[in-house]
Amino acid sequence: MMKNLDLSKVYQLLEPGPVVLLTTTHKGHANIMTMSWHMMVEFEPPLVACIVSSGDHSFAALRATKECVIAIPALDMAQIVVGIGNCSGRDVDKFKLFGLTQAPAKCVAPPLVAECFANLECKVVDTHLVNKFNLLVLEVLNAWRDPAQKNPKTIHHHGYGKFAVDGEMIKLKSKMP
Amino acid sequence: MMKNLDLSKVYQLLEPGPVVLLTTTHKGHANIMTMSWHMMVEFEPPLVACIVSSGDHSFAALRATKECVIAIPALDMAQIVVGIGNCSGRDVDKFKLFGLTQAPAKCVAPPLVAECFANLECKVVDTHLVNKFNLLVLEVLNAWRDPAQKNPKTIHHHGYGKFAVDGEMIKLKSKMP
Repeated sequence: MMKNLDLSKVYQLLEPGPVVLLTTTHKGHANIMTMSWHMMVEFEPPLVACIVSSGDHSFAALRATKECVIAIPALDMAQIVVGIGNCSGRDVDKFKLFGLTQAPAKCVAPPLVAECFANLECKVVDTHLVNKFNLLVLEVLNAWRDPAQKNPKTIHHHGYGKFAVDGEMIKLKSKMP
Repeated sequence: MMKNLDLSKVYQLLEPGPVVLLTTTHKGHANIMTMSWHMMVEFEPPLVACIVSSGDHSFAALRATKECVIAIPALDMAQIVVGIGNCSGRDVDKFKLFGLTQAPAKCVAPPLVAECFANLECKVVDTHLVNKFNLLVLEVLNAWRDPAQKNPKTIHHHGYGKFAVDGEMIKLKSKMP
């Protein structure tokens, strides 16, 4: 059901600043976390910077395997997104707990999240700022879009479980990509 | 009219991923650019990473002076935001062209933008990734909020002048800041 998305369009998914999920696989176990601190770094090949706290269970997996998937959930997953952010993969199998479906990625070991409307397969390409800021730079190797989810509304975290949901879309004449 | 905003609340403004403006002052000239590639790096003191293209006129100012202001516009400024992104401070005085009001900052030389609902005075604190990725890490030294603009809706760029406007706000029970 997921279709390949052209890498030149990846920035259009992340630049608006949605809350995303990040999957990793370490020693045979898949894990998933909620992430809101990310930004585009380059259009193509798409580079993405993100902050993953060294206290997060996913941090060790990401450092060791240098692979992850960024999965973008729509509004209907908001409750699950918060649930994922409020527990640790140290204690629970979050995929099982939240009833999420793992789908195989093409270029990396961590799974896609079938319920998300987009999935980005990533490898870590820069760790210069990981010790100082927990900042990683990722390259998106392959991207997926679920065409069945048309015009998904994303959620944007304002702190303490308060989210802005995408509202009206406006189009202004612009020379910028 | 602008009131001081506690630094512990700065992430609540940027984490949702709004399009922002960035002001610099170089050799006596103030300039302003549109920026969408930014993320939070730390809660407090607030650290923010951003990408400023080396081709942008603001880049030289930022590298030389290591100071900027991040100003956050609401929906009513969308047309101006696009206009600012579509011309260069090399050619025009953008504050004059777009009728924007400069207000003095407290800790840095670049001006606040009086029409924006929030302004963050920043200094550059890390340039390790500037040559490789045009990535700068900023520390927010002082923050301002205009209480006259209640519940401002921000805009989120999806590419080519298409923006999602903040819609419904939802609140879910969460343990996360």
